[in-house]
Amino acid sequence: MSWLAGAGVPDEENDNLGVDWVLQYEFGDIDPTQAITEFRTLIDDLTGAGLRVQVRHGHGAALLLCIQVPRDHLGRMVHQSRIKDWLYGISHVLPVGDENTTADPETACEEIRSVYHAVTWQKHLGGAGITPNFGKWERVTSSFPLHDQAACSDLLRQWSRKTVLSSQDLDTIRALFGEKVAYYYAFIHCYSLFLVVPAVLGIFSWMYLGPYSTLYGGALCVWCVVFVEYWKIRETDLSLRWDVKGVGRLKVNRVQYHWEKEVRDPVSGQVQHVFPGWKQFTRQLLMIPFASVASIALGSLIVVTFASEVFISEVYNGPMKSYLEFLPTILFSLSLPAITSFLTSIATRLTDYENYRTQDLYDLAQTQKTFVMNFITSFLPTILTAFVYVPFGKQVIPYLHFFRHIGLKIDVARAHKDFQVDTSRLQQEVISLSMTSQVINFGEEIILPYVKHVLWQKWRNYRDRQIGLTRKRSYSKATDLLLIDPPDEAPFLQRLRSEADADEYKVEEDILEMCVQFGYLALFGVAWPLVPVGFLLNNWLELRGDFFKLTLECQRPPPIRADSIGPCLLGLDFLAWMGTLSTAAIVHLYRGPMSEVHLSSMLLTIFVAEQVYLGVRFVASTALQKIFADTLRREEARRYAVRKSFLEASRSRTGSPESPGSRVRQKVRFHDRVNVYSSSSDTAPSPDGSPSPTIEAQDEDLRGDREAEFWNGPTSNIADAGVKLIRALSASKAGEGKATKAA
Amino acid sequence: MSWLAGAGVPDEENDNLGVDWVLQYEFGDIDPTQAITEFRTLIDDLTGAGLRVQVRHGHGAALLLCIQVPRDHLGRMVHQSRIKDWLYGISHVLPVGDENTTADPETACEEIRSVYHAVTWQKHLGGAGITPNFGKWERVTSSFPLHDQAACSDLLRQWSRKTVLSSQDLDTIRALFGEKVAYYYAFIHCYSLFLVVPAVLGIFSWMYLGPYSTLYGGALCVWCVVFVEYWKIRETDLSLRWDVKGVGRLKVNRVQYHWEKEVRDPVSGQVQHVFPGWKQFTRQLLMIPFASVASIALGSLIVVTFASEVFISEVYNGPMKSYLEFLPTILFSLSLPAITSFLTSIATRLTDYENYRTQDLYDLAQTQKTFVMNFITSFLPTILTAFVYVPFGKQVIPYLHFFRHIGLKIDVARAHKDFQVDTSRLQQEVISLSMTSQVINFGEEIILPYVKHVLWQKWRNYRDRQIGLTRKRSYSKATDLLLIDPPDEAPFLQRLRSEADADEYKVEEDILEMCVQFGYLALFGVAWPLVPVGFLLNNWLELRGDFFKLTLECQRPPPIRADSIGPCLLGLDFLAWMGTLSTAAIVHLYRGPMSEVHLSSMLLTIFVAEQVYLGVRFVASTALQKIFADTLRREEARRYAVRKSFLEASRSRTGSPESPGSRVRQKVRFHDRVNVYSSSSDTAPSPDGSPSPTIEAQDEDLRGDREAEFWNGPTSNIADAGVKLIRALSASKAGEGKATKAA
Repeated sequence: MSWLAGAGVPDEENDNLGVDWVLQYEFGDIDPTQAITEFRTLIDDLTGAGLRVQVRHGHGAALLLCIQVPRDHLGRMVHQSRIKDWLYGISHVLPVGDENTTADPETACEEIRSVYHAVTWQKHLGGAGITPNFGKWERVTSSFPLHDQAACSDLLRQWSRKTVLSSQDLDTIRALFGEKVAYYYAFIHCYSLFLVVPAVLGIFSWMYLGPYSTLYGGALCVWCVVFVEYWKIRETDLSLRWDVKGVGRLKVNRVQYHWEKEVRDPVSGQVQHVFPGWKQFTRQLLMIPFASVASIALGSLIVVTFASEVFISEVYNGPMKSYLEFLPTILFSLSLPAITSFLTSIATRLTDYENYRTQDLYDLAQTQKTFVMNFITSFLPTILTAFVYVPFGKQVIPYLHFFRHIGLKIDVARAHKDFQVDTSRLQQEVISLSMTSQVINFGEEIILPYVKHVLWQKWRNYRDRQIGLTRKRSYSKATDLLLIDPPDEAPFLQRLRSEADADEYKVEEDILEMCVQFGYLALFGVAWPLVPVGFLLNNWLELRGDFFKLTLECQRPPPIRADSIGPCLLGLDFLAWMGTLSTAAIVHLYRGPMSEVHLSSMLLTIFVAEQVYLGVRFVASTALQKIFADTLRREEARRYAVRKSFLEASRSRTGSPESPGSRVRQKVRFHDRVNVYSSSSDTAPSPDGSPSPTIEAQDEDLRGDREAEFWNGPTSNIADAGVKLIRALSASKAGEGKATKAA
Repeated sequence: MSWLAGAGVPDEENDNLGVDWVLQYEFGDIDPTQAITEFRTLIDDLTGAGLRVQVRHGHGAALLLCIQVPRDHLGRMVHQSRIKDWLYGISHVLPVGDENTTADPETACEEIRSVYHAVTWQKHLGGAGITPNFGKWERVTSSFPLHDQAACSDLLRQWSRKTVLSSQDLDTIRALFGEKVAYYYAFIHCYSLFLVVPAVLGIFSWMYLGPYSTLYGGALCVWCVVFVEYWKIRETDLSLRWDVKGVGRLKVNRVQYHWEKEVRDPVSGQVQHVFPGWKQFTRQLLMIPFASVASIALGSLIVVTFASEVFISEVYNGPMKSYLEFLPTILFSLSLPAITSFLTSIATRLTDYENYRTQDLYDLAQTQKTFVMNFITSFLPTILTAFVYVPFGKQVIPYLHFFRHIGLKIDVARAHKDFQVDTSRLQQEVISLSMTSQVINFGEEIILPYVKHVLWQKWRNYRDRQIGLTRKRSYSKATDLLLIDPPDEAPFLQRLRSEADADEYKVEEDILEMCVQFGYLALFGVAWPLVPVGFLLNNWLELRGDFFKLTLECQRPPPIRADSIGPCLLGLDFLAWMGTLSTAAIVHLYRGPMSEVHLSSMLLTIFVAEQVYLGVRFVASTALQKIFADTLRREEARRYAVRKSFLEASRSRTGSPESPGSRVRQKVRFHDRVNVYSSSSDTAPSPDGSPSPTIEAQDEDLRGDREAEFWNGPTSNIADAGVKLIRALSASKAGEGKATKAA
C-alpha cells in the first residue's frame, strides 16, 4: 500500500483531532433540568468506563460528545479481543501476553471496533453501555466514528482510474470499514467479473441468435448456478483471509435478548444463555403468514395497478385517456411506501419476537423478511407481463364488455377483433427496467441524497449564523462565547456536525440491490441478451458510487465483523432456482408463435429444466469444492498448527524436572486382555520396560499356562517351524496326489 | 455394562490364546522353495516391526500366522494414535505423556485398530507393511483379528430378549467392531424406530383410506424427508459421542495412491501429498458414461425380460405356455450376475483411475457406483409396471399383431377386445417384493451362507482327517507330528481355520440393503399401506440376523473408524426426492379411473410435488438444526476448552520468572493515529503505564498542539461544560422563539 504513504501525514482539514467516537445527544423534546441530569449520567457512564470525553454543541438542541479511549485502555481491549478470537477458534495464532498486555491494533477497523465495544458494550463486559436510540439512551441519536477523509478520498481517486479492484483494495476497504462492508465490495466485484461471461455471450447472442434463444437461456442458467456456488467458496476463502470464519458465535448477546436458562458446558466451563431452538423455530413459522400477507397485499396492489394500466392504455377510449394512463402508476408509487413501511413494522415486531441472541442473527432474520417484500415488488410486475398478460391477454380482454354495461366508453372493435397483445411488451419492459431504472436508481440512491445533504448542511450553517446574529443582540457575552466555534476548530466542528446529521450506512440495502439485479438477470435476462452488458457497465459505476455514498454521504459505520454476505446468499440460491424455471418458461412461450403453446409441453419443459438445475447445481458444487479443496483445507491446517504448538509446549513443560509424575501415570498395564471394552483401567504403575520392543523380553505379557505354551511352544524359531510346515504340507499334497493316482 | 461381567473370564473354548491378529498364507500355486523364501520375508517383516509370531498349518496348502503385538509396543501405538487424533482435532483431550508413554486401550476396537496398523501400515509409518491380496503379498489371502466369542454370543442373547436397542448397545457394538460397523447398527435402529410412524399411519390408512390415498402418500413423503434430515443430525451426534468427527482427514494414504506434488503447509508445517482436485473431478466425470452404460445394459435386460414375461403370460397362447412363462425370469436371473460382475469390474477400474487418497474415499466412490447399479436392478421392474405397463399396456398390446405374422400363436381376441391391463398388478408386485422378497433375502443372506459355511468346514475337517490317515501310512513320524494338532490346541485351531475360511464382512452391503428398503418404501409404499409394517417386522429380525452373520459367519472386520454411513446418505437424499415424484405420480395415476388421466395434469401434480418436496426439505433441515443446536454445538465447546487450557498453560508458563520478555514485547505504542491501517508496527517498548486507566495520566497520548488544545481546552470539567452548553442552547432557542414572535 505504498500509495497510501502520502496519506500518512494528514493535512489540517482532515485531522480528526484524536476523536475516536462521537455521540450526538438531542434534548429538544425535554426540559433543560431533565436534560442536565441525563447528560451528567451520560458523562459519568463514559468516564466511569475509562473514556476521555470532550463536548461541543451540535445543530439545534443537541450536544456532540467527542470520545477518546486512552491508548493503554484501548491496547488492552484489543489484546483481550484477540485472545477471545483465539479462544473461539476465529484466529489461530495465540497473542503473547497476559491480562495487562496492550496490543497495537493492526488496522483502523480493529482499533475502531474496540472503541465501539468500549462505548456500546454493557458495563459488566467492560463498556460504557451506551445503546443509542434504545431504552435509557433513546436521546442519544447518533453514535459513530469519524471518517478518515484522507484515506477515503485517496482510495476513491485510485478506483476511478482502474477497472478491476485487487485483493489489496478489498483489504483496504476491510481495514477502513470492517468485514461486513468489505464483503459487499468483494461481492459486487466478484459478481461484476463473472458478468463478463454472460455479457460476451449476450453480445454474441444478440448478433446471431436473437432474443429468447434456448442456447443463451441455458448458458445463463448454468452461469447463475456456477456463480452462486463459486461465491460460496469465495466467501469462505475471504473469511479465512480476514480471520473471521465463524465470528458469529463470539458476538455478545443483544440487550433485548431474553434467555430461558443458563447452560454451563461440562467440558469447557463456558456459560451460555440459551433460548430453546424449537421455540425460536415455532416463532419463526410466523414467517409463513407474514409472507402470505405481504404477498397478498403487495401482489393485489400490483395486479390492480397493472390491470388498470393495461385497461386504460389498450382498451379504454374515453375522456382524458392520456392523463388517466399514468394514474395507476402514480397511485401505486404513492401508496407503496406506506404499505412497505407498514409491512416492515410488522416484520420488525416479528423479528423482535423471534428473540435472536446476537445482532447479527437479528439483522439476518430482518433482511430475510425484507428480501421477501423486495422480491415481490421488484419481480411481480414483470412476472405478470411475462406469464399472464402476454399469454392470456387475448382471452381476458373480451370479458371487458362488462365495463361497457356499467357505462364506460370502450373501444369494442379493438377489444374484440383487432386486439392483439403485444408480444414484444416483455422485451420492452425488460429493457426499460434493466437500463433506465438502473440509471434512475443510481441517481436516487447516490446523487440526490448527496445534493440534499449538502444543501441541508448549508441551510443549517446559515441558520446557525442567523441565530448567532439574533443572539448577539439579545444575550450575554458569556453565552455568546460558548456557542461560537473557536476559529481553529471551526472546520473540524462543521465536519463533525455534518457527519452527525448524515444517514447511517446500511450495507444490507446495497447487497439486496445487487441481489435484485442478479435476480433480474436470472429471471428475465433471456428476453434481451444485452441485459448483462448493461449491468456490467452499471456495476462499474455502482461500485464507485456506493463508495462515494459510504464516505461522503453516510456516517462511518461501526466496523462489524461478518463471515458472509448474510441471508442474501440464500436469496441468490432461490433466485438461481426461480431463474431456471422462469427462463425455461419464457423461452418455451416466446420462442415460437404463442398460439401453438400447449400447457403440457410447457409444464414438461419447466419440469425438465428444474431437474437439470438440480443436477447442474450438484455437479457445480461438487466440482468447485474439489477444485478449491486446498483453499478450504487451510483452516484445518491452522487448527492443526495450534494443537501442534500446544503439544510441543506441553511436552517441553512435562519434560522439565518440575512435573515428572504425569509421565508415569499413563504407563499402566493391561490387567485383562479379553474384557478391555468395559472401560475399567487398572492404574498400577509397571516397572519401566525398555522402549524398543524385543520379543524375548515380553514373556510377562502372557497370561496363563496355555497361552505361554502356545507362544513359546515346541519350536523356538518361527521361520524354521513355518518352513518345516510348508515342506510337510507340500509333501502331503504330493502324497495325496500319488495316493489318488494309486487308488 | 454389568451384564458383561460374566464374560470377563472366558472359558477354554472361547480363549483366543492372546492372538491379536491372524494372517493366512496360501502357497498352493507356487513351488515349495519359492514359498519358503516368501514366507521367510514375511516372518522377517513381521518380527522386524516388533511383532511376535507363531505359525500353524491351515486347511490345504496354507499357513496360519498368529500375531501378537507386545504390550509395550501396542501401548505406545495407542498413545501415538491418540496424540494424532488430538492433533487433527478428532478428540479434544490431550493425552498426557511423551513419545515413550504407553497407553491402555479403552476399548477392544482401539486395541485391535492399533494391531491392524502394526500389521498393515507401511514400514515408514511403523507397521509391517503386509497388504493382503495386493502386490508383494497377494498370497496372504486373509488378514483378520479373532472374534471375541463370549462377548458376541452374550450380546446376541441380550438382543433376542429386547425390542429396542439402547445407546449402550450401540456403544458395545462400537467397542467390539469399530465405528464403521456401529454406524450400520445405529442406522438400522434409528430407521426402524422411525418406521413406527408410517406403520401406524399405514394400518390406519389400510383400514379407512385404502391404497393410493393422497393423505397417506403425502405423509409418507414428508416422513421420508424428515427421517433423512434427522439421520444427518443423528450421525453428527454419534460422531461426537464416539470422537470420530472428521476422522477421514487423518487416515493414511492408500498404497495405490499417486500424488503429483508434495505441499508443505506454511502454518502447520504438515506435508501433504496432493493430487489436483480438478483432475480428480475430470476423472470422476467418467461416472456419467458409466452410469449411462450401466443403465442401458441393465435397463434393456430388464425391459426385455419384462416385456417377454408380459407377452407370454397375457397374450401368448401357444404350446408350453406354463413353462415359457418362467423362462424370461430364469434367463434374467442367470445373466444378471455376469452382467453385474462385468459392470462392477468396470466400476472398480474407474475408481482405481480416480485415484483417491484414502481407503475411505475409495470405498465411498465404489459404493456410489454400486448404488447406481443397485438402484436400477431393484427399482426399474416396479417402475416399469407402475408407469409403463399399467398405463400404456392397452395401447401397446394391439401392436402384437406383428407377432402373428411371424407365426406365433396369439390369443387375438384377448389382445384386441377383452384385454384389460390389470391395475392391481402394481399392488401385487409391491406386496410380493416387499414381503416375500424380504424373507427370501434373509434366507439367502444369513441362513444359507451359515449352513454352507458349517457344512464346508465339516467337509474340510473330514478331508484333513482322511489325508492324515493317508499320511500316516506313507510318511515319516516327524512330518506326521507336525501336521497333527496338539489336543489342547485342537479346538482353538479348528476355530482359527474356520474363521480364516470365512467371508469378509462388508458393512456397505448391509447399509445398501437398508437403503434399497427405504427406497422401496419411498417410491412405492403408497400402493400398499402395510408396507412399513412388514418392513418393521423384517428389520427386527434383520438387525439380529445381521449380527449373527457378523459374528458367526464372517471374519471379524478390522475396526475401521468412520463418521457417517458414507455415500448412502446421498442415496437416501436421492431416494426421498425420487420417492416424492413417484408417490405423486402413482397417486395421480391410480387414484381414479386410468382413462381420465391427462398428461398435463399429471405433470402439474409431479411439478407441484417437487416444489413441496424442496420446501419441506428446507424447513425440516432448518427446524432440526435449530432444535438440535445444542447437540451440534458440543464440538465447538470442546474446541474452546482445548484452547482455554492452552491459554492457561501458556500464561502460567510466561508468568514464571523464566520468560519475562514476551510480555514487554507486545506493549507497544501507537506511532501514528491516522495511518494505522497500513500494518506497520513500531515496537519500541513504552514505560510501564498504570493498569487502570485514569484520564489525567494519558496526556502523553495526545499528538500535536491542536489535539492537546482540543482535549484540554478552556473547560476542564466536561460535565459542567456540557451543562453550560445545554443552558445556553435552551436559552438561545427560547430567545429565538421570542425573536420570531417579536418579528
